[in-house]
Amino acid sequence: MAHVVEICDADDPRVDDFRDLSRADRRPDRPGGRGLVIAEGVVVVERLLASPYPVRALFGVRRRIDELAAATAALDVPAYVADADVMARVVGFHLNRGVLAVADRAPAVEPADLVDRSRRLAVLEGVGDHENLGALFRNAAALGVDGVLLGAGCSDPLYRRSVRVSMGHVLRVPFAHLASWPNDLKLLRDRGFRVAALTPRADAKPLRDAALDQGPVAVLLGSEGPGLTEQAIAAADLAVRIPMADGVDSLNVATAGAIAFHAMSGT
Amino acid sequence: MAHVVEICDADDPRVDDFRDLSRADRRPDRPGGRGLVIAEGVVVVERLLASPYPVRALFGVRRRIDELAAATAALDVPAYVADADVMARVVGFHLNRGVLAVADRAPAVEPADLVDRSRRLAVLEGVGDHENLGALFRNAAALGVDGVLLGAGCSDPLYRRSVRVSMGHVLRVPFAHLASWPNDLKLLRDRGFRVAALTPRADAKPLRDAALDQGPVAVLLGSEGPGLTEQAIAAADLAVRIPMADGVDSLNVATAGAIAFHAMSGT
Repeated sequence: MAHVVEICDADDPRVDDFRDLSRADRRPDRPGGRGLVIAEGVVVVERLLASPYPVRALFGVRRRIDELAAATAALDVPAYVADADVMARVVGFHLNRGVLAVADRAPAVEPADLVDRSRRLAVLEGVGDHENLGALFRNAAALGVDGVLLGAGCSDPLYRRSVRVSMGHVLRVPFAHLASWPNDLKLLRDRGFRVAALTPRADAKPLRDAALDQGPVAVLLGSEGPGLTEQAIAAADLAVRIPMADGVDSLNVATAGAIAFHAMSGT
Repeated sequence: MAHVVEICDADDPRVDDFRDLSRADRRPDRPGGRGLVIAEGVVVVERLLASPYPVRALFGVRRRIDELAAATAALDVPAYVADADVMARVVGFHLNRGVLAVADRAPAVEPADLVDRSRRLAVLEGVGDHENLGALFRNAAALGVDGVLLGAGCSDPLYRRSVRVSMGHVLRVPFAHLASWPNDLKLLRDRGFRVAALTPRADAKPLRDAALDQGPVAVLLGSEGPGLTEQAIAAADLAVRIPMADGVDSLNVATAGAIAFHAMSGT
């Protein structure tokens, strides 16, 4: 089991990985300046423990660390225990969920490997908003999407806010970065995927008629606001749209994604 | 056109309706202690101007008030203009969107009247979260739902946060409160509606097989977490579910709603 270490002093350097969480996404001392993976709350910590990310430590109030005893049974890392006040002073704010875990990033997944082992994929372009990104992963996990490919202009799914909004599902749904955008979409086509660009354009096919539940399919989603670029739409095999009432601009990208993922699921 | 009045002093009582916005949802001086309807930003202000709610005044920086000139052309109310600093001191924080409008509430809609003029309805139980409620209205508007019935335990859709998250669509999609819950669902059945309860229960019918695009339909949505009560599910004509991957708790209620609304739309 994780070995419990009491922390009484908020300045204790052993909990430095948990210090000042609002800045935890930037770590000039770490590779690429990127933060560690941080999970907040029992459920998300459990998802982190079940993920490929190597956990370094836990930090929580006694009750929450105890709740995680079964999940941490096989784990040889410290579980730092403190009272809520000491935790708040380390973390920088009062933490409702009472427990955190921190992990190293894992080596990046190769897009070709992810495509090889998937039948249903989401491909994102320009999704820079951390909440939308997290919500997309949550919806992908719920609706059986096998993985996410990140095209140009997407944020880092392992940002703290994305991990939280995804309820930890960014730690479960594999993702990979496409280096050359949108050229790398050919990775999909070479492997027999149909690539469907979701766009509000009037000449796109209604989602219901696109049979996205047939065969390997990847759905291409652009950011709210500008939407997909012309180049991305042109690189897709077909354009599909969610029919929308007059006078409504668009759906949130994670919501539009959920409707498309449900259509892909065939269930 | 709305008549422009310059405001140079943050204490000017003429802008009292816009004062301390973070507390604007509670107005002990107003009927029921409820706040006025507040729209933030050009797009939402335009939706308020097109809504049944009687606008009392606008308040904004010169550029935003000018942008609204066409929309306010027929309006005989004051448009208070101030610089961003004075606005921030009135409102209580710096307002990125630069313009507000405030309106009186309108008389409540009778549920029977709303049902009579609708073919597709959303019925909510226990949706207390203002963001979820706003997002549900946005999705309802986008996907052609005619109205929303509010059952037990729902918050006020006209709270400032709900108006904002809905992007003003709570001002467009009519809603009514059901007084007796879930008994008042008979209003729907008496008028030929099928009432479909959305629930993750394994014995519910997959959404895809429920033909929600046929005939007048109302979809019943419960809060995230507890979901619909037994009584509500029992009072529905059928139970439907969105098939979900193993190990995923549930979708956000507004996201689940969007998937159901798309299924209802038949387009």
